[in-house]
Amino acid sequence: MTARAVGRRTLAALLAAALPITVTPAAAGAQNATRALAQKVETWTRANEPAVLREFAEFLAIPNIASDSATIRRNARWIVDAFAKRGVALRLLESPAGGPPAVYGELRSPGATRTVLLYAHYDGQPVNPAEWATPPFTPTLRTNSIQAGGQIVPLPEKPGVAGDEWRLFARGAGDDKAPIIATLAALDALKASGARPGINVRFYFDGEEEAGDPHLRALLERHRDLLTADVLLFADGPVHQTRRMQIVYGVRGTMGMELTTYGPLRALHSGHYGNWAPNPIVSLAHLIARMRDEDGRILIPDFLDDVRPVTDADRRAIGAAPSPDSGLRAELALGRTEGKDPLAEAIMRPAMNLRGIRSGGVGAAGSNTIQPEATASVDFRLVPDQTPARIREKVEAFLKAEGWHVVHDAPDAATRRAHPRVVRVDWRESGYAAVRSPLDLPAARAIVRTVGDAHGQPPIEVPILGGSLPIADFAEVLKTPVLVVPIANHDDAQHAPNEHLRLRNLRDGITTFAAILARLGAEWK
Amino acid sequence: MTARAVGRRTLAALLAAALPITVTPAAAGAQNATRALAQKVETWTRANEPAVLREFAEFLAIPNIASDSATIRRNARWIVDAFAKRGVALRLLESPAGGPPAVYGELRSPGATRTVLLYAHYDGQPVNPAEWATPPFTPTLRTNSIQAGGQIVPLPEKPGVAGDEWRLFARGAGDDKAPIIATLAALDALKASGARPGINVRFYFDGEEEAGDPHLRALLERHRDLLTADVLLFADGPVHQTRRMQIVYGVRGTMGMELTTYGPLRALHSGHYGNWAPNPIVSLAHLIARMRDEDGRILIPDFLDDVRPVTDADRRAIGAAPSPDSGLRAELALGRTEGKDPLAEAIMRPAMNLRGIRSGGVGAAGSNTIQPEATASVDFRLVPDQTPARIREKVEAFLKAEGWHVVHDAPDAATRRAHPRVVRVDWRESGYAAVRSPLDLPAARAIVRTVGDAHGQPPIEVPILGGSLPIADFAEVLKTPVLVVPIANHDDAQHAPNEHLRLRNLRDGITTFAAILARLGAEWK
Repeated sequence: MTARAVGRRTLAALLAAALPITVTPAAAGAQNATRALAQKVETWTRANEPAVLREFAEFLAIPNIASDSATIRRNARWIVDAFAKRGVALRLLESPAGGPPAVYGELRSPGATRTVLLYAHYDGQPVNPAEWATPPFTPTLRTNSIQAGGQIVPLPEKPGVAGDEWRLFARGAGDDKAPIIATLAALDALKASGARPGINVRFYFDGEEEAGDPHLRALLERHRDLLTADVLLFADGPVHQTRRMQIVYGVRGTMGMELTTYGPLRALHSGHYGNWAPNPIVSLAHLIARMRDEDGRILIPDFLDDVRPVTDADRRAIGAAPSPDSGLRAELALGRTEGKDPLAEAIMRPAMNLRGIRSGGVGAAGSNTIQPEATASVDFRLVPDQTPARIREKVEAFLKAEGWHVVHDAPDAATRRAHPRVVRVDWRESGYAAVRSPLDLPAARAIVRTVGDAHGQPPIEVPILGGSLPIADFAEVLKTPVLVVPIANHDDAQHAPNEHLRLRNLRDGITTFAAILARLGAEWK
Repeated sequence: MTARAVGRRTLAALLAAALPITVTPAAAGAQNATRALAQKVETWTRANEPAVLREFAEFLAIPNIASDSATIRRNARWIVDAFAKRGVALRLLESPAGGPPAVYGELRSPGATRTVLLYAHYDGQPVNPAEWATPPFTPTLRTNSIQAGGQIVPLPEKPGVAGDEWRLFARGAGDDKAPIIATLAALDALKASGARPGINVRFYFDGEEEAGDPHLRALLERHRDLLTADVLLFADGPVHQTRRMQIVYGVRGTMGMELTTYGPLRALHSGHYGNWAPNPIVSLAHLIARMRDEDGRILIPDFLDDVRPVTDADRRAIGAAPSPDSGLRAELALGRTEGKDPLAEAIMRPAMNLRGIRSGGVGAAGSNTIQPEATASVDFRLVPDQTPARIREKVEAFLKAEGWHVVHDAPDAATRRAHPRVVRVDWRESGYAAVRSPLDLPAARAIVRTVGDAHGQPPIEVPILGGSLPIADFAEVLKTPVLVVPIANHDDAQHAPNEHLRLRNLRDGITTFAAILARLGAEWK
C-alpha cells in the first residue's frame, strides 16, 4: 500500500474510529472468549514474571548499536535461540550489501486462514554512557522513573513483588526489544494455558531501524516471497500518553540532514580576530532562524507544497481520543508549546527538529576562539504526500537562494576561499516517506476488536503517529497494508539516555500479543 | 593608569608611532651598542639552542591548566628553580582566597635608575586532547606548522639543525610560557656575553590568566608595595602577522557569558513531539541571531553607548602598519570577512564572539530527540570606556525586553512551567575592562628604540590589541603605565588545539628580552 491509498478512506471509517463498536451476539461470544484467554495470560504473567524479567535483562545486556557488527549479531543469534526454545525456527536474512541481518521465521498454525507479518527491531539508538544514570547495557530495575524518585532494586526472585510502575532501564528496553520479549512470553503463556495460535505468523526482526535501515529495501526485494501476509503488524512506538492501548494507522516519514558552516581554516584567538574572521556559529544560528521559527513553522519556501491537508475527519478521529496535552505540559515542565494546536494535530504537520548542534566548547571546555566550523543536525518529519527527494530539492534551492555555496563533502581551502558563504549539506539518512492505512481496513477492525476485548476497553485509534517507522519500504515492496501495534510507555525515554520499559506496559504487551496470536483468527471474520 | 588616562594622548604622539624615529648622534651611539649586544646574543642562541629547547620542553611537559592545583604548582616551583639556577631568587605569592600562586622576585642591577615590572603567565587554556595531533603536554617539535606539512622530528642534539619555521607544539608554548623561557635564555646569553642588566626588574608570573584571574586583584592589593615600577611590560600575545615585532599600547577588555535555553524536562522523541514541545536549539539560534548579525554588529540596544570612537589619529597609526589582511584571508581560507573594515580597525570595536555551542549530538552521536536544553558560550571584547558591569546590565535588559525570564542558576521545573521562555545567564568570568596607554609615554619611546635597535627595524606600534590581558587590575591598583611586548607568532594556535611556538619567534624573543634587560636603561634617557 502506498501513501496515496489512504485517499480511499471514508468518513464512515473515520467515524468508526471514534464511536463505540456495535456488538452482535456472535461478536459477544468472541469477545468473551478473548477476554477469558487474556485473563489466563495475565495470571500466567503474574506467576512467571521473575523469569520473563531475567530473560529480558539477558537480552538487554547485549549492546545493540547497529554500527557494531559483532554485538548486533549476538542480538540476532540470541533471538534465534530464544524462539528455538519455544519450537519456532528462525534464521538470519542477510542483505546483499552487508549490514545487520534481519531475523526471520514462520509459525504455521493448523487450520489458520490469516497470515500476519509481525515486525519489531532489535537495534537501538546510539548511546552516550556519560549521560546515563546507570550504564545503558547493564539492565537496571527501578521502582519508578528516575524523575519520580525510582530506586534501584534487584530483579525480583519471587512473583508478586514488582509494581506496575517499576521500570527496567537499558537501551532498547522500550524501543524496540519490548515486543520481542513480549511475544516470547506470550508463546509461553499460551502453551501453559493450553491455547494455540489461531493465525500464521511470519516474524521479521530488523537490526538497523535506528540506523535508517539502509539495507532494508534490498532485503525486502530479495525475500519478497517469504514475506507475503494479509497484514503487517508493526510492533514499535509507544502506547497513548494516557497509558491506553492504541492502534495506529500511519506514521510520519523521516529524513536526516546535517548542516555545517565554516569560519577560518584553523581556530583563531577571538580577541585578535573577533569581528573580522567570520564566526560559523553565528552563521549557523542565522541559517537555522531563517529555516524555522520558534512556533515550529518551517520557513523554507514551498516546503509544504505536497502536504495533504489535515481534514475535518482527521480532526474528528483525533477529538475522540483523550487529550494528553495538559498532563504532558505539567510532566515535561513546558511553559509553552510550539504553536497553538493540540499535540495530536501538531504532529499531523511536517516538522523540522534540531536534534543537535555542536561547535567549540561550553562551560569549562570553552576557549576564547573563533571556530573553524559549526554543525547542526536536523531530522525532518514528513507527512503524506511529501517525499525525501522533493524535500532535498527544496532545502538546497532555499540555501542557494540565500546565497550559500552548497557542497556535499568537506570543502577544501580553495572552495572556502572562493565563496563568501559555504555550507555543507550531508543527507545522512536517505529517509522514507509517510504511510497511512485506511481506517476501515478489515484487518484493522479485527485487531481493534481483539485488543479491545483482551483489555476490556477499546484501544485509541490514531490516524497518524508523530514518529517514523520504515513502513514505506514495506508498503511499497510488499503491497501489504500496515498497522502499528505499540506496547511501550510514552515516557520510556526512547532515543534518549535512561531508556526504560514500565512493567505494566510489559504485562499489557504480553496480553496483547497472546490475544493476537490466539484470538485474531477468530475475531477476523 | 586607568583607561581614561588614554585621553591624554596627543596627535604628535600618534604621528610618532607612524613616522621614522629621528636619530641624534647620542641615539646613534646607543643604537650601535644595542645592535652589537643583540648580535652577541644571536650568536649565543645559535650555539646553545639545543639546551634552550630541552629546558623549554621540560617546562611545557608540566600540564598548566589553572584549575588543576597540583600541576599548576609544579609549574610555579619549576620557574622558581629555573631562576635560582641563574642566581635570581623568586618566590610564590599566595592569594588570600586560594588559587594558583603568582611567582614573584626581583633582579636588582647596580646603578640602575629604572625599574620594570615584567609580566607573563604560566597557565594555559583548557585542552581537549582528542583534538590535538600530539598530546598537549608532550612537547613535540615539527619542521613547520601542521597545515604546512610539518613533520615530527626529535629535539636537536646539535646547534644549526633547526630552521626558523620549526615549531614546538604544546599547550602554553606560545601563550604564555614563551616569554619566561626567553627571559631565562636571555639571562644566560647576557652572562656568556659579559653584559649586565641595566635596569631593575621585578618579575610577576601569573598562574590563572586563562581562568580569568579571579584572585589577581586581591593579590595585587596585598602586595602593592612589592610591585611598584616605572613601567609594566606585559609579555603576552602575538607579534604582528607580518612577523615583525610590535609594541602594543592597549588591549580590549573581555568578559564571558553562557546562555542556556530550555525545552522539555527530559529528552523527547522528535517524531512523537516534534513541533509541539519547544526546541531549545531553535530558541537559542533565534536568540543569537537577534543579538549579533553576520557582519559582527552587536544588535543589543545601547551596547555601544560607552564606546570611545575610533579617531582619525587611531586610523593614521593603524595605516602606518603593514596590512596583513589579504595574506590572512588566503592563509585562513576566508571567502569573506565580517564587515568591510580592515582587521586592525575592526578590532578597535567591541566584539561578541560565539566561542561554543552545544546541545544533543551531531554525526554518529545524533539521536532523534528534542533536547532538554541548549547552551551557547560567548566572549565579549570590550573597548574603552565599556565596563563589564554595564555590559551585564545591557544584556539582561535586552533579554527581558525580548520576553525572556532571566535566571542565573539552573531553573527548577516549577520555574520552567511558569514561564514561556526561560534563559539562564551565567556570567562565567567577571571580566575586565580595556586599557590604553598614551603613545608618547617616555617608557614607550625607550622600549620602541631598544627593540628597534636590537632587531635593526623599528617595531610596529599598535594602539590597541584585539586580545585581552588582565591589565585593568594592574593599571587600577598599581597606577603603573603598561606596554605589551609580545614575542609569539600570530599563527601559534593559542587557545586552540596544536598550540605551538615558531622557533624564529623564540630566537627573536631571546634577543628582545636580552636587549631590554641590558640596554633599556641606556636607551631610556
